[in-house]
This record gives sequence, structure tokens and C-alpha cells, in this order.
Amino acid sequence: MPGTAISALAEELVRVVGKKYVLSTPSSLALYECDAETMDVARPDLVVLPRSTLEVQRVVELANKFSVPFTARGAATGLSGGATTIYGGLSIVLTRMNRILSIDPKDMVAQAEAGVTNLAVSHAAAPYGLYFAPDPSSQSASTIGGNLAENSGGPHTLKYGMTVHHVLSTKVVLPDGSLTVFGGRAKDKISLDLLGLMVGSEGTLGIATEASVRLLPKSRFVETMLAYFPSVATGGQAVSDIVAHGVVPAAMEMIDSVTLNAVEDYLHMGLNRAAGCLLVVELDGPSESIHVQRQIVELVAKENAALSLNWAKDEKERALIWKARKTSFGALGRIAPHGYVLDGVIPRSKLKEAIERIAEIGEKHKLTIANVYHAGDGNLHPCLLYHRENEDEVQRVMLAGRQILELCVDLGGTLSGEHGIGIEKVHEMPMAFSAHDLEAMTWIKKAFDPRSICNPGKIIPQLKSCGESGMRPLLRHKLLTGC
Amino acid sequence: MPGTAISALAEELVRVVGKKYVLSTPSSLALYECDAETMDVARPDLVVLPRSTLEVQRVVELANKFSVPFTARGAATGLSGGATTIYGGLSIVLTRMNRILSIDPKDMVAQAEAGVTNLAVSHAAAPYGLYFAPDPSSQSASTIGGNLAENSGGPHTLKYGMTVHHVLSTKVVLPDGSLTVFGGRAKDKISLDLLGLMVGSEGTLGIATEASVRLLPKSRFVETMLAYFPSVATGGQAVSDIVAHGVVPAAMEMIDSVTLNAVEDYLHMGLNRAAGCLLVVELDGPSESIHVQRQIVELVAKENAALSLNWAKDEKERALIWKARKTSFGALGRIAPHGYVLDGVIPRSKLKEAIERIAEIGEKHKLTIANVYHAGDGNLHPCLLYHRENEDEVQRVMLAGRQILELCVDLGGTLSGEHGIGIEKVHEMPMAFSAHDLEAMTWIKKAFDPRSICNPGKIIPQLKSCGESGMRPLLRHKLLTGC
Repeated sequence: MPGTAISALAEELVRVVGKKYVLSTPSSLALYECDAETMDVARPDLVVLPRSTLEVQRVVELANKFSVPFTARGAATGLSGGATTIYGGLSIVLTRMNRILSIDPKDMVAQAEAGVTNLAVSHAAAPYGLYFAPDPSSQSASTIGGNLAENSGGPHTLKYGMTVHHVLSTKVVLPDGSLTVFGGRAKDKISLDLLGLMVGSEGTLGIATEASVRLLPKSRFVETMLAYFPSVATGGQAVSDIVAHGVVPAAMEMIDSVTLNAVEDYLHMGLNRAAGCLLVVELDGPSESIHVQRQIVELVAKENAALSLNWAKDEKERALIWKARKTSFGALGRIAPHGYVLDGVIPRSKLKEAIERIAEIGEKHKLTIANVYHAGDGNLHPCLLYHRENEDEVQRVMLAGRQILELCVDLGGTLSGEHGIGIEKVHEMPMAFSAHDLEAMTWIKKAFDPRSICNPGKIIPQLKSCGESGMRPLLRHKLLTGC
Repeated sequence: MPGTAISALAEELVRVVGKKYVLSTPSSLALYECDAETMDVARPDLVVLPRSTLEVQRVVELANKFSVPFTARGAATGLSGGATTIYGGLSIVLTRMNRILSIDPKDMVAQAEAGVTNLAVSHAAAPYGLYFAPDPSSQSASTIGGNLAENSGGPHTLKYGMTVHHVLSTKVVLPDGSLTVFGGRAKDKISLDLLGLMVGSEGTLGIATEASVRLLPKSRFVETMLAYFPSVATGGQAVSDIVAHGVVPAAMEMIDSVTLNAVEDYLHMGLNRAAGCLLVVELDGPSESIHVQRQIVELVAKENAALSLNWAKDEKERALIWKARKTSFGALGRIAPHGYVLDGVIPRSKLKEAIERIAEIGEKHKLTIANVYHAGDGNLHPCLLYHRENEDEVQRVMLAGRQILELCVDLGGTLSGEHGIGIEKVHEMPMAFSAHDLEAMTWIKKAFDPRSICNPGKIIPQLKSCGESGMRPLLRHKLLTGC
């Protein structure tokens, strides 16, 4: 985008949102050049921070007027580069839209602007004994708008589902600047499911500025178990067997020995370093009645050669168990400064095979791979450890990452459980989706965004931007293509 | 469609599926002129019964060659006219595609052709202790393809969700005859959700010929309660309170005094004729642990002035309680020969108001309205009783029906919980959906079906068919417009 056009656009944007909320200096733009997927970096031409849906509409209208692509951005905790402005243009940051509009305890619904954090919704609902179920690890920072765009999940997805299962409606600024609402407040999955289409579309069909979400009553009783198994295979079998016994835990999380040793190095909490894996099982329910489920879980764990198991005696012990799981990725920083977290999904029954073949891929590329799993739903997070300065190692990380995704698809799984496609996996889409699927996605994208101006270049391979500006050079692309 | 063209098409169809499976005589076509929504009647030009996905592709190609609209049809238990060929053309009946392709107990997945009945999937899964959760009342007859098209629910939707929550993938013949697969076998809600878009699209985007569906382990313990309340309002409050206490019953079903008296007239099972409503609450779970939930339900019922309550002591008693509920619509036939069953949805907290205003609408139009509710999720089935020969009464039924739907939307609800839009409610769509929503639906429809050849005239108002044949005169339209 030529400098004169940028200045002209900036001037008009200032009229909409005020001078303070249009950023254009290199140092301020640098803060918005990627999200938490830091391998793909591309600087926007301008950053704008609207305060209302109306301002978002005006900003999008200006983007259209100047034929400049735009990309919505929340707290930028996304892990697939969905908020990265790979064609430059406008980064539209929604964090100032952080008002909770209503909490309705009777119908158990919260209405919030897109920039409200996930956890703030639960905090606002807490006085009524309610909470918002989706719990991405980033929940203290990540926003409702971002959760909606990425269809975020978390450890408790197993029992409570992903964001799509909890969104009732959303206010959307369409790519041409017009406003609509998808969904309603009641059970409302009829006709063509525009709301379902919007959730998970990563900001490519429009910008969600508000959402109504379902609240759930907090479980009165929670039981959390930490168990060790001799191998990931035995732990994985226990996970399958628990589900086969008809128990649906709130969460089943597993970490492998590489990860648990890193956590122990860091926290010194007395984890069993000799174990092949650590499994966390959390049960919850409206009553003490979960004690029978607890017995089933124990029985199954013992049948699968559990080395030991231990139920949290109180809130403090439970918090400690979760700390071991939640510190995993951070603790891996002790092994190597950078980690590339994958997000593959496999059928639960293929866990053992997946683990073995991921280890083989690691050996082949001389990489340390730590594994953290949402084991209950077959969602793997292999973490490929590396040093960013070591270009050869980075190349090997990228190749191994691609091979692990291929493996997941081969085993009947898919590319992403909860991190989305974004730019990170856009080139891998043909692995998991047929030409027909991609064509149908293209139809839909073109129908909503004929100018390809709304977060272009994401999800669907080879969709070009309308803009004058071309694709920015991306770190990972450079590494992969050597250009 | 001119007779010569019909003959030419029939001849080519015979080459694809065999003579026996192309129906063209008036008496055989008459059997396919509507589904279970019998107010809209329109005869197809030809009926064809393919046996495989490949045959469906060939049939759709021929429909394209002859520019004839086509409509897929399963067991025709649909309640909104989704399978009615309102522009004539081909009725493509999938009941011969009734093979269960696989049951995978390990990953808990069944794969079936579209014409397999809902219950047949559960029967095939039963030896493994598994079942298919969606349970429309029609489940012994209705097909997986129809369930998918209509996103069917049932009494147990409250806890287990609708069809969309249980479909993992589907094989689809697109409107041009090409074949694709939407979805996969793993947790797979990433990118643009084509599978979610397909489910509930009522056969307007293509024809599902196969589906992979999730199976669930059968609950080991079930407790079923029948309670009476002085009024629908007190019963409705109990329903809200049960959910607010964090108990999610497998089902909460309510019938009003008109209905319960009709059932008692029919079954003589000793129902309390003086009660304002009858509430069925079913709890299920993997263990005896549900006894605590049972105590909560009892407590809440008593707090809400329950006249009496009774838990089924054995399977026989439980079957009897469900018989009272499931016989409801049939029993209403004792009051009047015809019933028009609506399917509105309201926020649960508005139940009392909805009931009162539905009664007012009934009085205004001098109609008897019986009410059956999936109370847990606010899904109302008011049944407007009438005699079809009484044209004036039918007119009043149609007007009252429309006013009840307007009421549901006014209260923050929507047009349909589980019966779909079809042709029945296509003119009411603008009540619940904005012009933008309808426009976006039109974009999607046009992207998939640019010739408007695939089940035209459904869901979206004013989308015209490509065909030479015009819209057939419909009974209800005739009544409403007087033409």
C-alpha cells in the first residue's frame, strides 16, 4: 500500500475512532505483527482500535473504500496465525470493546462484546453460581470474539463441548460493513446454520462484535485424580476404557515422560520421574453421586497397570494437580527456548500407534518431541522443541510438524482440534479436505466476501486478496522455500 | 413438465435403476405427494428408488440433463413438508439404501446408508452396549438421511443434543451430481463447517447418501418420575428450577390437562384428570449415583406444589409412563380427527407467559389447543385440533398457528425446534430471520445449487426453481389465499 494512501486512510480512520486509536508508527505496528503463532510474522499497515459495533462498521467501510484488506484481532493468543495480517492492511483490534452487556441468570445467558475475556464472563456469572464452559488455556487473556472465531476448546471440551456448543447468537459486521445477527436466544439450529458457519471461520466471513453465550451451573462436586502409568500406551488404553464404561469425565489430560520430567525439574512437586505418562482425570457433577464413577475410574486404571493413583483431598491438592498439567508448555522451556505446539486429532483408539510414530518422526529428524494430550477426545499437542537461531533445526521442526499432521490424517484424524487453520496450516488443508470441500469453502467465502478483503489468505489455500498490497514475506515460508 | 419429456426421462432412469424402481402411474405417484405434514400436497412427476450412491449420482445427472427439480425422500415422517415436491419433478426415494456398513465399537462409530432407520442403527449397536442418541418420535421409521436433513431431535435432546451433535461425516451427492464427503471421523469442527451446514439443510444443498454417526454407551441406570402439578406454570417453574440446581435430566416432558385427559380417555391408566399438567422427568447415568439427583428433583417438585409424584419401580412402570407421553398426539384424535402440530421454541423462563398467550389465541379463534412440551429446552408442540372438511376451521387453524409462531419469536424464541422449516414455515422465515440472514442463506444456496434444482422452494422464501414446471397448488396455500 503506497504511503500516501496509508496517510489518507489513517486520516479518515482518526475521524471515526479518534487519533489515539489509530496506530501507524513502526514501533507500534511491530506489536501487532503476529499472534501467539510466532513463526509467521507480517506487519499491518495500520492498527485501529474501535470502541463500538458502529465504529467497526465505519472502519470496515473505509477499508472497502480504500480496497485495503482487514483482519480482526482480539488478545492475539491464537496459535495458528489467524490474526496475522499476511497481506498487510488494517489490523482491527477489538480489545476496547470489553463490556459485559447482560447476565441473565434465569435463562442462563450472558451477552458480551467481542473484546471481553473468556474468564471475565465466568467472573460476571459467578454470583449466580454460573460459568462459561469453554476453557482454553489462554482463558484469562483470550477474548470471546477470538474464542468464537477459532471455535476454542480446552481441557473440559471432552464433557462440555467447544465454543460452538455454547454460542447462542452473534452480532456480525459483514465484509461490506453491513450489520447482521446470526442465531437467537433459544434452541435454534434450524434451516441453514449461519451461526455454526460463523463460529470457527477465523474472521474470514465477517467480524463478530458481540455474542450471547450459554452459561452453565457450576458443578457442586469435583473429584480430580492423578495417576501414573508405565507407558503412554497403557494410559491411553485406560482413557478408552473409562469412556467405554460409560463415564464421561469433565477432563482427561495426559502428559508424557519428557514433559513430566520438565515439570518436575521446574516445580519440584514430587512427580514420579520413572513413569511413562501422567494422567489427570477430573469428574464433576451435581452431587456426591460421582463416587461411583470414581470407583469405575480406579478399577479401570488398575486394570491398565497404573503405577499409582491419588485423588485430590481438597481444593489445594486439586490446584496442584492442575498446575502440573497447565505448567507443561512453560516447563518445556527448560529443555529448549522454543516449542512449536501442534494440534492434531486422531481417533482415540489410535493413540498408541500415533505416539509410537510421532517418536519415530522425532528420531528421524533428531528432535525432542514432548507430548501433551487432551486424551479423552484424541486431541494431541506434540511440542517440537528447538532453538530459533538454529536454522537447520527450524527446518527440521517444520518438516517433522508436517509429517505429524500427515500421520494424524492417515490415522483417520484431522489437522486441528482447537487451534484452527489460520495461515499456519493453510497449505496442509488439501491433506484433510477434498478438492470438493475446498471448492465449497471457496463458494461460501466468495459469497460472503466477494472482494476477498476480510482476513484474506486464511483457511482456504490459494484465495487471493483484493488489495493492492501483496502477501508479506513470512518467516516460515522463507524457511520452507529458502527464498 | 410435458408428458413427452417425462417419458424420455423415465426411460433413461430405468436404465440406471431398473424398471421396477421408476414409478410413474398416478396411483403410485399419489403415495409420494406429501410427507407427514399433510397440509401441503404436491405430486412428483416421477418417483425413482436408487440402490447406491452411484445410482443417486446418475439420477441427479439426469435431472440436470432434463432440467427437472429433484427432492430426496426417506421414510417421509417429516413434519414440515421437506420431502414434498412442490415444483414436481423427481422424488428420489432412498429407502432401498438400507445397509449398515460398519459398527466400530472401539471408536464408537456406526456407518450407515441414508435409508437405514434410526432405530436400526441402535439395534445394530446394541450387542456392544452402544446406541445412537437422537430419538425422534418417528425413530422406528425415520431414516438417518432424514434425521440428518432435518437435524432431528427428540425427548432426550435435552441432555444428548440433536442429530448435528452426533454426525461425524456424510457422503453427499451435490446438486450437479458430483460426490463429496463432509466431515471426518475425529473431533473435526475446524475451518468452515460444511458438515454443520449440511445437517439441517433439509436436502437443499445436496443428497446425503451415507453417514458416520457417533454411538454412546447405554446408561446403566435410569430413573423415571411422573409428577402432577396444579398448573402448567408451576410445572414449568419446576423444570427451570431442576436445571438451575445443576441437574441435567435425560428428558423433561410435559403434557397439559387437555392432553392428559385425552390420554386417560384412551388408555385408562389412572392419570390424575384434575391436574393442570403432567411432568415426566427421566434421569440416567453410568451408576446408581443418580439417587442424589433424584432427591433434588423430588425436592424441587415439592417446592413447586407438586400434587403427587411417583418413580417407576421397574421397566414395566417406566414403559407405562412413557406410553402416556408418547400416546399423546394419537390420543388427541379422540377430540378431533385432525391435529396441526406446531414446533415453536421459547426461552425456558417464558413458559408460563407462552402458555397463557397460546390459550388466548385458542379462545380467540375458537379452537381447542392441546399442549405437549419438551419442557427442558423450551420446545413447545401446541397441537391445534380441527376437522379437515370444515374449511372455516382450517382457516382459523392456519391463522392461529401463525400467531403462535409470532408469539414464540416475540418471546425471544424461534420457529422450529426440531421439525424444520420445509415448505410449512417458509413464509414465516422473515419473522425470525433478518433480510441479511436470508440473503446469506441465498448466497449459500446459490453457491451449492446455482440452478435451484435441488429441493427448490424450501427454507428460503422466494427462491425460484430452475425447472420448466411451476409451483404446484398446495392445499394450505389455497386455504390461505382463497385461490
